[in-house]
Amino acid sequence: MADKFMSMRNLKFTLHEVVGSTPLPHATGGNGHTRKSMDMVLDAAFDFAKKALHPIFEEMDRNPPELKEGTVAVHKDVRRIMTTLGKDGWISAVFPEAWGGENMPASLLHAVNFIFASANYSGSVYSGLTMGAATLILTFGSDELKQAFLPPMLEGKWQGTMALTEPEAGTSLGDLTTSATLSDDGTYRISGEKIFISAGDHDGVDNVVHLMLARIEGAPAGVKGISLFVVPKLRSDGNGSLVNNDVTVTQVFHKLGYRGAPITALSIGEKGDCTGYLVGEPNRGLSYMFQMMNGARLEVGMGATAIATAAYHAALDYARTRKQGRRLTDGKGAPPIAIIEHQDVKRMLLFQRAVSEGALSLILQCSRYEDLIHAGPEDQREDYHLLLELLTPVAKTFPSEMGILSTSLSIQCFGGYGYCEDFPVEQHFRDMRIHTIHEGTTGIQGMDLLGRKVVMKSGKALMLLDQEMNQTIEKAQAHPELQKMGNTLSDAKETLATTTQALGGMAMEKGPEAFLANATLYLEMFGHVTIAWQWLAQAVVACDQLAAQGVKKSDRTFYEGKLAVGRYYFIHELPKIGPLAVTLTQPPVTLETDVAHFTD
Amino acid sequence: MADKFMSMRNLKFTLHEVVGSTPLPHATGGNGHTRKSMDMVLDAAFDFAKKALHPIFEEMDRNPPELKEGTVAVHKDVRRIMTTLGKDGWISAVFPEAWGGENMPASLLHAVNFIFASANYSGSVYSGLTMGAATLILTFGSDELKQAFLPPMLEGKWQGTMALTEPEAGTSLGDLTTSATLSDDGTYRISGEKIFISAGDHDGVDNVVHLMLARIEGAPAGVKGISLFVVPKLRSDGNGSLVNNDVTVTQVFHKLGYRGAPITALSIGEKGDCTGYLVGEPNRGLSYMFQMMNGARLEVGMGATAIATAAYHAALDYARTRKQGRRLTDGKGAPPIAIIEHQDVKRMLLFQRAVSEGALSLILQCSRYEDLIHAGPEDQREDYHLLLELLTPVAKTFPSEMGILSTSLSIQCFGGYGYCEDFPVEQHFRDMRIHTIHEGTTGIQGMDLLGRKVVMKSGKALMLLDQEMNQTIEKAQAHPELQKMGNTLSDAKETLATTTQALGGMAMEKGPEAFLANATLYLEMFGHVTIAWQWLAQAVVACDQLAAQGVKKSDRTFYEGKLAVGRYYFIHELPKIGPLAVTLTQPPVTLETDVAHFTD
Repeated sequence: MADKFMSMRNLKFTLHEVVGSTPLPHATGGNGHTRKSMDMVLDAAFDFAKKALHPIFEEMDRNPPELKEGTVAVHKDVRRIMTTLGKDGWISAVFPEAWGGENMPASLLHAVNFIFASANYSGSVYSGLTMGAATLILTFGSDELKQAFLPPMLEGKWQGTMALTEPEAGTSLGDLTTSATLSDDGTYRISGEKIFISAGDHDGVDNVVHLMLARIEGAPAGVKGISLFVVPKLRSDGNGSLVNNDVTVTQVFHKLGYRGAPITALSIGEKGDCTGYLVGEPNRGLSYMFQMMNGARLEVGMGATAIATAAYHAALDYARTRKQGRRLTDGKGAPPIAIIEHQDVKRMLLFQRAVSEGALSLILQCSRYEDLIHAGPEDQREDYHLLLELLTPVAKTFPSEMGILSTSLSIQCFGGYGYCEDFPVEQHFRDMRIHTIHEGTTGIQGMDLLGRKVVMKSGKALMLLDQEMNQTIEKAQAHPELQKMGNTLSDAKETLATTTQALGGMAMEKGPEAFLANATLYLEMFGHVTIAWQWLAQAVVACDQLAAQGVKKSDRTFYEGKLAVGRYYFIHELPKIGPLAVTLTQPPVTLETDVAHFTD
Repeated sequence: MADKFMSMRNLKFTLHEVVGSTPLPHATGGNGHTRKSMDMVLDAAFDFAKKALHPIFEEMDRNPPELKEGTVAVHKDVRRIMTTLGKDGWISAVFPEAWGGENMPASLLHAVNFIFASANYSGSVYSGLTMGAATLILTFGSDELKQAFLPPMLEGKWQGTMALTEPEAGTSLGDLTTSATLSDDGTYRISGEKIFISAGDHDGVDNVVHLMLARIEGAPAGVKGISLFVVPKLRSDGNGSLVNNDVTVTQVFHKLGYRGAPITALSIGEKGDCTGYLVGEPNRGLSYMFQMMNGARLEVGMGATAIATAAYHAALDYARTRKQGRRLTDGKGAPPIAIIEHQDVKRMLLFQRAVSEGALSLILQCSRYEDLIHAGPEDQREDYHLLLELLTPVAKTFPSEMGILSTSLSIQCFGGYGYCEDFPVEQHFRDMRIHTIHEGTTGIQGMDLLGRKVVMKSGKALMLLDQEMNQTIEKAQAHPELQKMGNTLSDAKETLATTTQALGGMAMEKGPEAFLANATLYLEMFGHVTIAWQWLAQAVVACDQLAAQGVKKSDRTFYEGKLAVGRYYFIHELPKIGPLAVTLTQPPVTLETDVAHFTD
């Protein structure tokens, strides 16, 4: 197995030099991180990832969770991972000091998650899910709920989940039917079925806390009648003991990848004895959940980025050491060369790097906005919020979709070996494939971007993004070698703007179905433009640094490498928006295609 | 599991109405098939596929081959499949009558293979490999070899393989080191190692016959010193018995997919007791092998096409029956609709169909050229040969590369269910991924296309293809609704021609490394143009039929569907050649990128 699963050099470059080139203006609470203190956190995270997560990357895959005697048996190390992450403060890191946290900035948290996920994606989700669920309780729960559930969750003793999906209501949450009936004591009797619940049960923790959507009896139909509940696997009996809360695991799904974490189907309240505790107000569950969902979507993007990164490093390592073939210009009898010397292999590596490092940059940029929402100048916080909202579907989808291609090319670099279990890339390819599905499919992200985010506040978010990009383009103008890239990005922005306008016209003329028919392609286009922006931003930093005096040779090579990948992106990938613009501005083919045309 | 794995209606349409719209001019030997007799063959193949291959599609995957006591244990049905295919004449079908065959036309053979592979790809390769190896013996072997090996192979009792790859020589065959030493009796002692040998050993047959490349002692270095041998697992002792021939299975690879067929590593002549029989003349092994390789590459393309087809039908079936969500224009309380009604799902289905049916059409077109090489007018046979040579890398690669995307979208249509083993699409996605690798990676195909096929005979093959496309465009002009598509294909051809010229200029100016640096992208572009051509050809037939009198309603729907998919291809996919042309005509980024730039 390849030892290297991510580049700390690149992570720190992206976090400090690109995204964090200016310090956060208002350092609040435990937020007062310096570059040095952040590096210490990253190094500690890497140490844990390398020692505790990476060594069981393959083991967890080869021995997937099994349902045994009513509970889900997972890899024996899960318990140790969870308690260590709890004890050492990783799960509570973003929490206020009152809860043992240190108000870790979102950008640092995401960087840490990147390290964990690149070491072992499945192994990293248990704590991530717990953190997300705990955040929901912290934000919207009563003091009583917080006291009862947060401590063991933050200590890694209890697992947290998000329990949304039902057999007949995946994407269409408004159709969910799990019901909640008010009891005399103010709690609710919960009854229903949930599926695809990540870490919905396992033996690596003492209890599982579901943040579950359900419909209170008599609530309005659709999305406006959904409430959020805490539904534990074991509930307190009021006397200090935990008793069974009538939540049954009915299935553990056998999956293509992501096999180290159990995805479960749950039956809730089969015996009429499942208690749920309302979080916040009735019927506001979906809006609560969606505040966490945005974070979860960034996390999915980061997971995909991390997997693509690990696969890229495995491919890079192989390409450097595997010798085969010769240069086309080599004479007879020349010795075989490392395959990285072959143009086609180099091209595949450039693609993988462009995707993984470009996506990392975008997600860290998003989490920087997340930080600025809390710590930025008061009058700009709303703007940062809009930017984050706009970019979330992009940051979720670009790495997830391109990650399929990227890990596929990681396999390709290995030739036949890549198809075999002897190397990690086939697992990365399988682990990757979930990301365009969970936390909202790509289709949903496209409609979210075009149907909601682009049009919100009369397009203000798009205007703000335009300003952000313009700032980068302006900086690029200072470097003669970047002027062409700057101009190309300007043109690309223009193409995006024209396409957006054309779609607006289509919406007015032909209605919402035509407007959103190709929203997925619009999202793809948007992704290319924003990733190009991030590459230009990286190139600007690289040029700045290369122009400075006394640059170390290794740094020089690093920055020159950045310029090479940026060049690759602008020449090989960004031009793909051209045909997307052509397709998007034509009447949607799907609308002209009757379902009857799909004959047998 | 979805019952439907292919559309017989579409296969017959493609074979008879599109590719075979004119009968073969010279029907030779058993070649005298009528449409009716071909349909009987196809129906019989389907019957076998449905009853014998499809039911064990998943079983073969879940119980992959294992090395047990020196031999590879495979699914128990493999023996029955092989002997039935032998007994019923499928393995010998393309052979002359003298060998029990019926000179089946290549186009019909490929259609049959499509049926088998869409039912169960792994299950279909055993006989396909045997047929390929037997063809090599028939074409180049001595009478003695034919008598000794062909009967049991054609009866399905002995497995045939192609044994090329070695641990240090995959793509670079010239580096292979397996050696052959002449014995007094005219046979050879073989010694070496082979890896990635499909069906290299298994217990579903009584013997395995390797068509193996090796180097005769004293032969020239490189590709010109490679000879072809028959190396059986068991050899005749001259007294009617079979004895061990010192070929040992050292490993069965555990793979991402394609798990129903064993891929093995072999050690040959460990004890100095392995006999090989020279096929044809010494040092001509690679040229012999490559005559089979072209057929094998078409087969790989067909395998990928078949898998994409099966995945598409599973997704279509699901999309029609799964109800979720509503139209954007539906009022509150409207019932959920079948997800095929959602524009994004429809778009994904159109892509899958465009890829699988477009690829099927191209491969059958290629096999039609194969038929015409033998049965066409004498003075045109060389032209058909050139067309087949030119299109083989395209027909191998387009379905293999696009098939990854297509099966990925099959998964996407299912949402979370697609990621689970409960549905077949995750297996199709895994089975698909081998095809860009085996029988020559995509990188190799790109270099073959641009570096050899395009330039051979001063570009004559390209000129012939241009004529073929012009004929289709001309036919399209007869239908007002196809004129635009015809013009678009003309433009696309022009773009391809301009790009080819620019690359020629680059070759002269900057040498072969620059010329071929992005050969893979050139192949991608070429693929889009040729598949667009096939869709236009299908659209022409559809328009012809729709214009005819008395078209049945079901036929009308079928042909209208063809027009819809063609429209999709021209609006969504063909425009992708634009940015490829941009990238290809710029100085290759990879040449400017030093390998040192890939820093850690």
